[in-house]
Amino acid sequence: MKAIRVGLAGIGTVGSGLWRVLARNADEIARRAGRPIEIVVVADRNEARARAIIGEEALARGVRVVADVRALAADPEIDIVVELIGGYTVAKEVVLAAIAAGKHVVTANKALLAMHGEEIFAAAQAKGVMVAFEAAVAGGIPIIKALREGLAGNRIEWVAGIINGTTNFILTQMEQQGLSFAEALAQAQSLGYAEADPTFDIEGIDAGHKATLLASLAFGVPIQFNRAHIEGITRIDRSDVAFADSLGYRIKLLGIAKRREEGFELRVHPTLIPKDHLLASVAGAMNAVLVKGDAVGQTLYYGPGAGSEPTASAVIADLVDVTRLHTADPEHRVPHLAFQPQEVQPLVALPISQCRSAFYLRLKVADRPGVLAEIAQELAKEEVSIAALVQRAPQEGAAQLVLLTHECEEQAIDAVIAAIAPRPFLLDPVVKLRVEHLA
Amino acid sequence: MKAIRVGLAGIGTVGSGLWRVLARNADEIARRAGRPIEIVVVADRNEARARAIIGEEALARGVRVVADVRALAADPEIDIVVELIGGYTVAKEVVLAAIAAGKHVVTANKALLAMHGEEIFAAAQAKGVMVAFEAAVAGGIPIIKALREGLAGNRIEWVAGIINGTTNFILTQMEQQGLSFAEALAQAQSLGYAEADPTFDIEGIDAGHKATLLASLAFGVPIQFNRAHIEGITRIDRSDVAFADSLGYRIKLLGIAKRREEGFELRVHPTLIPKDHLLASVAGAMNAVLVKGDAVGQTLYYGPGAGSEPTASAVIADLVDVTRLHTADPEHRVPHLAFQPQEVQPLVALPISQCRSAFYLRLKVADRPGVLAEIAQELAKEEVSIAALVQRAPQEGAAQLVLLTHECEEQAIDAVIAAIAPRPFLLDPVVKLRVEHLA
Repeated sequence: MKAIRVGLAGIGTVGSGLWRVLARNADEIARRAGRPIEIVVVADRNEARARAIIGEEALARGVRVVADVRALAADPEIDIVVELIGGYTVAKEVVLAAIAAGKHVVTANKALLAMHGEEIFAAAQAKGVMVAFEAAVAGGIPIIKALREGLAGNRIEWVAGIINGTTNFILTQMEQQGLSFAEALAQAQSLGYAEADPTFDIEGIDAGHKATLLASLAFGVPIQFNRAHIEGITRIDRSDVAFADSLGYRIKLLGIAKRREEGFELRVHPTLIPKDHLLASVAGAMNAVLVKGDAVGQTLYYGPGAGSEPTASAVIADLVDVTRLHTADPEHRVPHLAFQPQEVQPLVALPISQCRSAFYLRLKVADRPGVLAEIAQELAKEEVSIAALVQRAPQEGAAQLVLLTHECEEQAIDAVIAAIAPRPFLLDPVVKLRVEHLA
Repeated sequence: MKAIRVGLAGIGTVGSGLWRVLARNADEIARRAGRPIEIVVVADRNEARARAIIGEEALARGVRVVADVRALAADPEIDIVVELIGGYTVAKEVVLAAIAAGKHVVTANKALLAMHGEEIFAAAQAKGVMVAFEAAVAGGIPIIKALREGLAGNRIEWVAGIINGTTNFILTQMEQQGLSFAEALAQAQSLGYAEADPTFDIEGIDAGHKATLLASLAFGVPIQFNRAHIEGITRIDRSDVAFADSLGYRIKLLGIAKRREEGFELRVHPTLIPKDHLLASVAGAMNAVLVKGDAVGQTLYYGPGAGSEPTASAVIADLVDVTRLHTADPEHRVPHLAFQPQEVQPLVALPISQCRSAFYLRLKVADRPGVLAEIAQELAKEEVSIAALVQRAPQEGAAQLVLLTHECEEQAIDAVIAAIAPRPFLLDPVVKLRVEHLA
């Protein structure tokens, strides 16, 4: 059968991995897909780099290199456009133009989909083309396929994932080596796990993009990144890592989507999780997503969440899917966001004040009698009950008090903190972290 | 859109879970699949039980109950036959008759597919229908979809899985509670994790069926259960569990499929795996499958490998898939065994003597000088090198000697054991277990 022809927009880290794996595994992939999948045009503003990556042999057999990624949409020799440019501007133009031209699209761009997914999927739906994005969440782990297809019999109750490798690497180093955040970040940067400007990762924005997509896939709700509650890991102190450890927990940056009666929770933040939970064993730059379905119970998907070839693996899975499905009538394809577009429910993400979890509170307090009583009274007023309490031996008149609460609404904890804030015994602002038992 | 109509053969544990989940999640499933999925006929030789399970309301709205599972194939009101009878005889007839009648089939029957999959898939291919079997391996974990689609860009190097919950429960109890095999088996039986006749599970046959299917899906090779090397856990002694622990390993029953130049390895046996590997943390009746692909690296899939609703979850995922794909031309569907039928390679599973792994050897030897030298000499002759050695303090003139070797061919170890067997210092037959580092 004749080859499926791919136009590749952007041949950076992932793009060059895609080129390499498609070439290396050409036979294996064709044996699965039923026909070859070939990149026929590479578009990259750095034409020279693109030529160097694909090599003389490819150029000689007619693979074209162009500087203008916008040229792909109009190219009559392309069946699928793969968008690996990143960002929201040019990438959006390229994707929408490809759709308008009736081409299928494969993208790894979570930022684009979290911000403009509604518009993009609606355009694809109207045009009868597919936009596949397995590589956008958790790199090489086929989590989108699992949620969209493998767990289709379930009412998904929640999804919780370690979906940013950079922050997981940093937190693992802080825990295992006793480093500060700044030290661990510097190490991550020197090893290539964090970028020179690490903001998107360490502030939780990248994880927020991914969690937003997971929520839509899990619950059949609109994409709503702007309603996600997002906190990064920059304020995690090594003392919190140590206290968590002594209480039987590890701190992980989790993306959480949880179904509730009134809507759903959508939040990304550092989270204490029990050490004996499988998710707590996910170390270094690895990713893992835990899904709770009403029928299946908990299933976990683990693997490399980034990197050249792992991400390329997901892009190729999409290319094979599109190849297999492109002759099907659009009504019978897998819907972009797992649920049929007309069946998406207009539920909104709840404000963080209405989200429920257990809490870790660390308070630096004056070492004098009655402090604990005052704190306990404020907790009681808000009907928050204490699950565990640790106090470190006072030094220079100050004590570190760590409380774990049972589950409650976040506004209750915030009311407690607000009530305590002006008290003279409080020497530093209260540190608040969330605790999830994932049971 | 009109409903997809299902005929259910067998309403036992999984069948009743299927009935329950399809009813409970009817809306959620229809929102995904684009149309309702309804069981219209239930066939079970115990008609009364079937009626009791589905209830008056279902009978009143016209769901039929019949005693003869063979009647489903000819029923013009059925689009898909779900086979949950188990076994090879009636189940095979039902599946082949459904295919011959042009109906799609969903089955959870690993034994049937491991024994007669070639015939069944060929018949389905010829007739242009699908036979879906996600529930046949690892219950609710969508591992077949991951291998067949999610990892389609990879050359799969190996698959290693804890794919039998009964044996994993028993081994976990032996390890955590220090029980003997017999004690742990009795506990598993009393808790419902093992059947009254546990042979299929504890002798590794069930895991062998599943590993056989995983190998075909991973490598694109024919199904060859008769060539699988299968050992169960009945001879695992608690002293081996303890020695493994002291050396940093846990013993798990693994199903392993590994690609080699000359063919592939297909084996099920108790295996020492490093305690710090994620797979070693899979406890109790849970399942997990680790897949090594050349591009993605290692990915792991974890969840409940059995049970009523977890298995039903996988059956429904197949029903949704078939619903989505049934209008596609058969050429563009996902091939049954991941690779296009004409692209299956006639590779054979290697005999166990040619398989490679590291080994654990436990020798009960007379406590006298020179014994270790004799053993070491035999190992050297076969070019097997020692990775670790533990000796327990001699009791009553006998010493327990435990050796871990580096990787070698199994025939080398067997030659060593054969050479040692007649020596007067050997007080009991050598205990041989395989070690996998899964790196």
